[in-house]
Amino acid sequence: MINGKNLIGFTESAEGDKTFRTFNPKANLENEWQFYEASETEINRAASLASKAFTTYSKISAEKRATFLNSIADEILGLGDTLIEVYMKESGLPEGRAIGERGRTIGQLKMFAELIKTEMWRDSIIDAGNPGREPLPKPDLRQTAIPLGPIVVFGASNFPFAFSTAGGDTASAFAAGCPVIVKSHPMHAGTGEMISRAIVQAAKKTHMPEGVFSNLNSSGIEVGQKLVSHPLVKAVGFTGSLRGGRALYDLAAKRKEPIPVFAEMGSINPVVVTQKALENRGKDIATNYAKSVTLGAGQFCTNPGLILGVASDEMNNFVKELGSKAIEIEAQAMLHPNIYESFHDKATVVMQQQGADIVAEYSQEVNSNFSGAKIVTVSGKDFLENNQLHQEVFGPFSLVVQCSNKAELLQVIQNLEGQLTGTIIAEEEDYSKLEELISALQDRVGRIVFNGVPTGVEVSPAMTHGGPYPASTDSRFTAVGSGAIKRWVRPFSYQDFPKELLPDFLK
Amino acid sequence: MINGKNLIGFTESAEGDKTFRTFNPKANLENEWQFYEASETEINRAASLASKAFTTYSKISAEKRATFLNSIADEILGLGDTLIEVYMKESGLPEGRAIGERGRTIGQLKMFAELIKTEMWRDSIIDAGNPGREPLPKPDLRQTAIPLGPIVVFGASNFPFAFSTAGGDTASAFAAGCPVIVKSHPMHAGTGEMISRAIVQAAKKTHMPEGVFSNLNSSGIEVGQKLVSHPLVKAVGFTGSLRGGRALYDLAAKRKEPIPVFAEMGSINPVVVTQKALENRGKDIATNYAKSVTLGAGQFCTNPGLILGVASDEMNNFVKELGSKAIEIEAQAMLHPNIYESFHDKATVVMQQQGADIVAEYSQEVNSNFSGAKIVTVSGKDFLENNQLHQEVFGPFSLVVQCSNKAELLQVIQNLEGQLTGTIIAEEEDYSKLEELISALQDRVGRIVFNGVPTGVEVSPAMTHGGPYPASTDSRFTAVGSGAIKRWVRPFSYQDFPKELLPDFLK
Repeated sequence: MINGKNLIGFTESAEGDKTFRTFNPKANLENEWQFYEASETEINRAASLASKAFTTYSKISAEKRATFLNSIADEILGLGDTLIEVYMKESGLPEGRAIGERGRTIGQLKMFAELIKTEMWRDSIIDAGNPGREPLPKPDLRQTAIPLGPIVVFGASNFPFAFSTAGGDTASAFAAGCPVIVKSHPMHAGTGEMISRAIVQAAKKTHMPEGVFSNLNSSGIEVGQKLVSHPLVKAVGFTGSLRGGRALYDLAAKRKEPIPVFAEMGSINPVVVTQKALENRGKDIATNYAKSVTLGAGQFCTNPGLILGVASDEMNNFVKELGSKAIEIEAQAMLHPNIYESFHDKATVVMQQQGADIVAEYSQEVNSNFSGAKIVTVSGKDFLENNQLHQEVFGPFSLVVQCSNKAELLQVIQNLEGQLTGTIIAEEEDYSKLEELISALQDRVGRIVFNGVPTGVEVSPAMTHGGPYPASTDSRFTAVGSGAIKRWVRPFSYQDFPKELLPDFLK
Repeated sequence: MINGKNLIGFTESAEGDKTFRTFNPKANLENEWQFYEASETEINRAASLASKAFTTYSKISAEKRATFLNSIADEILGLGDTLIEVYMKESGLPEGRAIGERGRTIGQLKMFAELIKTEMWRDSIIDAGNPGREPLPKPDLRQTAIPLGPIVVFGASNFPFAFSTAGGDTASAFAAGCPVIVKSHPMHAGTGEMISRAIVQAAKKTHMPEGVFSNLNSSGIEVGQKLVSHPLVKAVGFTGSLRGGRALYDLAAKRKEPIPVFAEMGSINPVVVTQKALENRGKDIATNYAKSVTLGAGQFCTNPGLILGVASDEMNNFVKELGSKAIEIEAQAMLHPNIYESFHDKATVVMQQQGADIVAEYSQEVNSNFSGAKIVTVSGKDFLENNQLHQEVFGPFSLVVQCSNKAELLQVIQNLEGQLTGTIIAEEEDYSKLEELISALQDRVGRIVFNGVPTGVEVSPAMTHGGPYPASTDSRFTAVGSGAIKRWVRPFSYQDFPKELLPDFLK
């Protein structure tokens, strides 16, 4: 079923001589399929086809694009259990998660199909002319949003469905009228191949131009670099590490024609817990957060990696409770041996810092690539003095910072880098004293969660999944929710156009 | 009245030891005022004050920001004729233009004041929660737009009022809730100083925090570079040359925390004239375009620098008519001897290219720094083969490209760099055959004008003043019209917030 070939438009292709395999972290062995890295010729062919497809795809009706999106959803469902099995073999994630994430992915495709049907998403503005205005006639101006061109999408290792081949970036780009070239994630290239075939199948069935989609394999960075540098590519969507995202951003900025890169690059997601909340429900909060920290082996960009509060007896109890609850939760397979190693290396760095106390560390015997929780605590003072403690530890890890007072807590927030989310756990009696805290958090994050957990990113029109750098490369956009489409369009104005030459929705 | 000092917050400051003067191009002599370049300490002080001001200014009510904007407009008007005289001395532009541009600037300030009053511009979205949803409760999400932080504005030489100190960038940033640091344009530093004092006066009268505005002088590039690299600066607005804009873009992209740069960098603004239009009204079009090419000595970013058509007798007549009408228009002072020289140098380069025919060149005796029109023609083939012919010649210049057929004309458009505008001059009987042309132009420009001239950028909610690179560094935004505010804000979501802690407009 999986043959490891690239999909260049509607054609399977394996011209390159480099191959690689994916890895089953749960079984700790290589998967059976062999993937062919895309060659330079294949990259150029995909880009040319996408550019050619753009001239027609950018202009077909919203209804047809919606049909295409819905058809992709159907084709993905049509892959049935085989897809779920491949997903599990390539990610180590459990079946329930695979099925849930597939549902979310289908939901995103359908949401964008629904969104574009009315053309309202273009935020078109009609400003009628006034030929009699003095001293100069006022022109008739009609502004709408038009697609940018071919988009390159880099999927994330931790969401083989929802933030990858047919994930939010691809769905929003297709919805906007942009062809997509996916640089397949090497950790789930088989899942990517199956989804890619579903997209091509949908494209054929709904009569989309060849080149509206291509899928390129690679295990290294060269294919991605060539794609981002390709003159026919007009924007980039990326979900992954800071190092990866920044490298692509830098490459795009150096082009003769620079192009926008929206990279969502993770976050430590500060959570602030008030004294009153700890007094009233410290145990419950600890139980909830033990679950949030270990959910999906902590492999979420919104994982609560940093919990902040003012030192007190209740805080001390909370930390202990969080630690003991977290290590009660069974260890889970991480996505890949590399991710497993990186988790332990980075956690070790934090644990070795001045003043860092290990609260609890999962210590039961585990299979290779399985990790349980690690909870560490440190004082506000030590945290402020040491940037090593501010780094993301991707995995089931959280650092609890115990500040000496509210002023220090605010200072800690002000010294954080940009984040996707911030969370406030507070009681009603705290509300009148939260202004400064909300203001400080708002300055650093894209979304504030109140009395909840940051994990779980609702696909809603009002969602912001992005934030000040390094949470994303451009805080003016979101990667999740219907607003994600705005990354791939630009405003365009028709001045004094004859009605018959305007698009229908501007007449 | 003009003392040449920087304005750092509310304080005049002249700590630097470098000074410079502005130049009166009409009289061909230096102006009397001496300006002090901002020192590094002054730059840092302006940035710190702006960052501090942001914490309060970003949160004051829309009504108060609107009062501030309207008060700036009043203070500028209060400067009376002296301001107009200084403007003329520093730009060589005539009184009528100065008064007109002041009106436009006042209009922009008032438009943004009006825009923000209702909070509608934030495009807020309220997506109510559903605690009973299965399998997971749906959170209550409310998204709005919040300001980015301190903005640095670089004004344009050719619009000392409307695209400079209190121009569209500054007005839209203030409206969004962002403090502004202006890097004053060295060619009109006196005009900039007067306007800056008006802004500070308005800030004091309306109780804005110190640092909401600063104005820094410099004749070179160092002050601007330091500002763009300053960690407390969060975005940049620029109007000017490709070289200048790209240098700032590159600098911003290299920062530890990259920041958005919206640079509007000019354009040659292709105009396509159909055979039918030439047959029916070739003379009128020539007369209109002779005026558009020479308006303001051609010193507009929307100057029609490129006119395209298919070769014919009528085309030949049109070219001759355009040339003879254009050189009938009196020569005008250019903004500065450097701009005068650059105009003649760049026009000469084009005129010396293979196949370039000089149609008409203004040849009456003129004062120093005065220029009349130059009209040049070339074949489509020569144009396609020679990139030197694609470069902007800033001044009263236009290149008419005579293509051998429609296919070649389309090819010429497809080979152009990104442009602010494209124009189509056509007759009703052409309409049914324009699809390909519109599509090709749309791909290269931010606005298409039908049967008009590209000069004259209406300040309208539906205006797009921007376009694919190098017209601007990010085609997803506009520099003119109410949409300009979107450059300075980011989406932000409140999740499950208690009503009492939400901003009023999200309750």
